[in-house]
Amino acid sequence: MEHLTEQLTKQIEFIIELDKLKTIYRQTKLIHDERQENDAEHTWHLAMMALVLHPHANEQVDLLKVIKMLLVHDIVEIDAGDTFAYDVAAHADKEEREIKAANRIFGLLPEEQAEELKQLWYDYEKKETAEARFAHSLDRLQPMIHNYKNEGDTWKRFGVTSEQVHAKNNYIKEGSTVLGQYAEHIINDSIQKGYLTK
Amino acid sequence: MEHLTEQLTKQIEFIIELDKLKTIYRQTKLIHDERQENDAEHTWHLAMMALVLHPHANEQVDLLKVIKMLLVHDIVEIDAGDTFAYDVAAHADKEEREIKAANRIFGLLPEEQAEELKQLWYDYEKKETAEARFAHSLDRLQPMIHNYKNEGDTWKRFGVTSEQVHAKNNYIKEGSTVLGQYAEHIINDSIQKGYLTK
Repeated sequence: MEHLTEQLTKQIEFIIELDKLKTIYRQTKLIHDERQENDAEHTWHLAMMALVLHPHANEQVDLLKVIKMLLVHDIVEIDAGDTFAYDVAAHADKEEREIKAANRIFGLLPEEQAEELKQLWYDYEKKETAEARFAHSLDRLQPMIHNYKNEGDTWKRFGVTSEQVHAKNNYIKEGSTVLGQYAEHIINDSIQKGYLTK
Repeated sequence: MEHLTEQLTKQIEFIIELDKLKTIYRQTKLIHDERQENDAEHTWHLAMMALVLHPHANEQVDLLKVIKMLLVHDIVEIDAGDTFAYDVAAHADKEEREIKAANRIFGLLPEEQAEELKQLWYDYEKKETAEARFAHSLDRLQPMIHNYKNEGDTWKRFGVTSEQVHAKNNYIKEGSTVLGQYAEHIINDSIQKGYLTK
């Protein structure tokens, strides 16, 4: 196609590559189905949570920036795979694998956009801005809600303790005290209901 | 939980309801897997397309508004189901089914947010703003890319003709001439490759 500029060609190639995120499965199961959740649908869910829950952020956040960060936050997993939150061994080389993935995947885009998206992902990982901290809150809270609605699910399957879940909740509180309190409620109620061991 | 305000309770209920969008399957298949695509992962894909392709919109668009519209545009399908683009019969009562769905699902939220999200969905449907027109371009282009990469897929399965695909392309052009040209290229190449009958 003669009108298809080099820029658009690269963008379309990137967009086709993104389809792969729909095939990266997380440990967490859906609430309304038995199957495991994939990264793409998980990300949509987080973006919707940002849209609805951003008034609960501890600091005022730029909603577009939060959503952009969330949209790109798991793309590196196309190459690096999903690392289960409680898998300590897999976290050892996670950063290295993910940086390599970010360079390859975002590198498919025209240079300026490649840099923008890599920076968004990097800022998310660094947790140094209000937007990144709030985005992390949502990323931690969402699987907690799934586990709660699924009567323990991955907590039971992997023998995760309430102490470990409490530790993860610190990330939620950092971005949102209100959501941290809600997560605390989930944890306590899950212990009481036998979804989670004390 | 005593600290869980009525507002947050409603928001969490809505967020749990949203999980159902991951179980609404479209006719379109993934590019990198054999299975059908669901609405939630489709929506993430569109939001990423907006992030990358918005410089190609015919009019300057508010990117946050485009992304918000896309994030909510298929939520009504939790109740109303996915209506295949070329299914004329199913389109007869589509609007009525979807309005009812919008009232119920967005109605789970606190009133102000319910109104905001309903309005976003309604504005998307009306196609009266630059943002809505561009969002529609992406929603039409994405399955076309899937069909192209999947050697015809739904076009072949449902006997869709190039004339019908050309008609849908008018929506793409309305939002973006550049993307309309790219879609034209896909259609012509698909005819040549035998993915689509002339």
